[in-house]
Amino acid sequence: MKVRNALYAQSGGVTSVINATACAVIESSRKSKKIGKVFAGKNGIVGILQEDLIDTSIEDIKEINKLMHTPGGVFGSCRHKLKDAKQNKREYRRLIEVFKAHDIGYFFYNGGGDSQDTSNKIAQYTKEEGFPVTCIGIPKTIDNDLPFTDNCPGFGSVAKYIATSTKEAALDVKSMSSSSTKVFILEVMGRHAGWLAASSGLAQSNNNSAPHIILLPEVPFNENKFLKKVKDSVKKEGYCVVVVSEGAKYKNGKFLADAGTVDSFGHKQLGGVAPRIAALINKKLGLKYHWAVSDYLQRSARHISSQVDLDQAYAVGKAAVEFAAAGENSIMPIIVRKKSKPYSWDIGKVKLSKVANVERKMPKNFISKDGFGITQSCKNYLSPLIQGEPMTPFKDGVIHTASLKNRLVRKKLRSFKI
Amino acid sequence: MKVRNALYAQSGGVTSVINATACAVIESSRKSKKIGKVFAGKNGIVGILQEDLIDTSIEDIKEINKLMHTPGGVFGSCRHKLKDAKQNKREYRRLIEVFKAHDIGYFFYNGGGDSQDTSNKIAQYTKEEGFPVTCIGIPKTIDNDLPFTDNCPGFGSVAKYIATSTKEAALDVKSMSSSSTKVFILEVMGRHAGWLAASSGLAQSNNNSAPHIILLPEVPFNENKFLKKVKDSVKKEGYCVVVVSEGAKYKNGKFLADAGTVDSFGHKQLGGVAPRIAALINKKLGLKYHWAVSDYLQRSARHISSQVDLDQAYAVGKAAVEFAAAGENSIMPIIVRKKSKPYSWDIGKVKLSKVANVERKMPKNFISKDGFGITQSCKNYLSPLIQGEPMTPFKDGVIHTASLKNRLVRKKLRSFKI
Repeated sequence: MKVRNALYAQSGGVTSVINATACAVIESSRKSKKIGKVFAGKNGIVGILQEDLIDTSIEDIKEINKLMHTPGGVFGSCRHKLKDAKQNKREYRRLIEVFKAHDIGYFFYNGGGDSQDTSNKIAQYTKEEGFPVTCIGIPKTIDNDLPFTDNCPGFGSVAKYIATSTKEAALDVKSMSSSSTKVFILEVMGRHAGWLAASSGLAQSNNNSAPHIILLPEVPFNENKFLKKVKDSVKKEGYCVVVVSEGAKYKNGKFLADAGTVDSFGHKQLGGVAPRIAALINKKLGLKYHWAVSDYLQRSARHISSQVDLDQAYAVGKAAVEFAAAGENSIMPIIVRKKSKPYSWDIGKVKLSKVANVERKMPKNFISKDGFGITQSCKNYLSPLIQGEPMTPFKDGVIHTASLKNRLVRKKLRSFKI
Repeated sequence: MKVRNALYAQSGGVTSVINATACAVIESSRKSKKIGKVFAGKNGIVGILQEDLIDTSIEDIKEINKLMHTPGGVFGSCRHKLKDAKQNKREYRRLIEVFKAHDIGYFFYNGGGDSQDTSNKIAQYTKEEGFPVTCIGIPKTIDNDLPFTDNCPGFGSVAKYIATSTKEAALDVKSMSSSSTKVFILEVMGRHAGWLAASSGLAQSNNNSAPHIILLPEVPFNENKFLKKVKDSVKKEGYCVVVVSEGAKYKNGKFLADAGTVDSFGHKQLGGVAPRIAALINKKLGLKYHWAVSDYLQRSARHISSQVDLDQAYAVGKAAVEFAAAGENSIMPIIVRKKSKPYSWDIGKVKLSKVANVERKMPKNFISKDGFGITQSCKNYLSPLIQGEPMTPFKDGVIHTASLKNRLVRKKLRSFKI
């Protein structure tokens, strides 16, 4: 069988463990007899279209191994969604040109729902055009909203960050509450699904402990009910910790944080719901508040990643290569939960056509009756995902990360404008 | 010599290591032959006035030891500044009543500038009134703005959090910058002094690395110069990371984040400078941005405390007890830097009267010529303070903290209204 090269690319919002997947793809490919070099798309699919391919074969394996503790996307990511091949043949034709020019036989696309859609389209198109490329999607998204897989690599680490940060900040506001701050609001990511906000519930050691209120996108925001709950919590506990998802919305579907701007995928750009809620609480209840917006900090915080998440991020990368080498195509490795207590999992697979553009929200039985918290079932699901503290090397007091050469392969094609 | 009880209280904004100081005071007092029980003021001086004294003698030493990895103020803190004894004799008289009723011979007040002022006033007053109580101030403030001491316990840990978070988030925005976010803005604490924002400079591995811009309260904000620097950074590096102090201000002294509200000390309450700067960048340069406000997360993040900071927080608590037992009064233990490379330090002392209400800002030679960064001298000063990663136990994936009984001593006096 002919040895062909592999192309790996990162897509969409990056995570603190996506580079562990990259590490696995490179390490496993180096071991495979079917795969030659591994190229990486500079800035995801955008770089591939422009023939900006990074040659990972020149990197020392020791440096590749440092990807295990390097957050962000080491080859660059992008927010670029390929249109249907019928509407936009030009980009697909270009992809085939690039694949042919560099003898790409395997394409590994590491991303969320939008990216799995892209992988699927490329698999179809290359097959139709008689230059079949094995396309394997590799799951990654802090939003945890991909279907079929038990969870999404990247999510568990943010969940751990949020649960720990909520517990720490709650101890802070509790200390201050007698004469100063009474309410602390933490805004976390999660555009449509409340998985990340929900994970703050893992900070609770009992029914009365923080967070006292979790605002999920799945539960329409009811101002009066919310304010009453804040008031009650302050009365009973002396303080109130609120964790709010950036995607929290009103009954009419309008985001609490709607600022009117959109990102490159055409999704509304959110941010700033915490200060809005803080202002509401101050105006209606006159309580002193503090608020935090964790934004990129949460998803890049490799220093507090979950060992389980890191293991799974590596495992899906390794499995992707192994599936490809075994002749699988148009699939995505998934995590299969075998048991929750103690947690055991395995790697399975699902067809890309089933994954693309399906969003998994929190099931109803994971949300508490009053809509402001999570149930024990939800905790049983979430808890295993944040377990374990991986080794994190520091240098001069700051997290130590990989420094790849990221040298581009010599271009063979004419330039291409996106 | 008669054995007398000690009273310890936490004051002002708490830190991730203030409980390490509490741990040291309790452990050292238990070893001292001159000190009986250690009581702790519930919620600082406010609780002392109300005779809400926590009896720490009933706590198991194992649980006390867990304070080493418990952020926040375990006995509660407060923002309450005693007025001059001449203006407000009532509160001072009450303090003496409480001290007498519970045979307090030693008062340890753990706080920043405002609190050292309070300790000093109490020392003076008890002496004047013929019931001398040994008053020792113990330094604590993330703002690092106390004079005489090399640095303030609590600061190094936030500095480490900020440097690491900046490095992590910079890798994230770098990954996204080709087709999405170009500018990331992190807002950190620091009302009047830029020490915390400055510490983000420790994330830099070379001249071109993030943070590209640090906005300090010490340097008046110049909009045009700032926007030009953002533009240049995006042009040169592809992205720009800005770390801004909540206390950043215009030339006329007005805070960028001025929201018009004040805290219980009468200081203006800040917050929200990051979104303002983000909006400015978007309006004037049309660049896509993300912003984070770390707020309480930064100062409670015990999971990424600095070992040096933790050691020093313990050392000042231990020294306070030892100074008191040796007959010292109206002083504050300080950290004395003996050498920067390798870092070595010792404990010294300073008179409280010299510390009270003096704010230490960043010296000019610590700020780079263009005002947007820090110098090598500054890095040499800061770097030792963020070294070392202390043991942090986790339970069920979340940081494990102490659970004290915090039982109050039976009251002996009539109630008191503040």
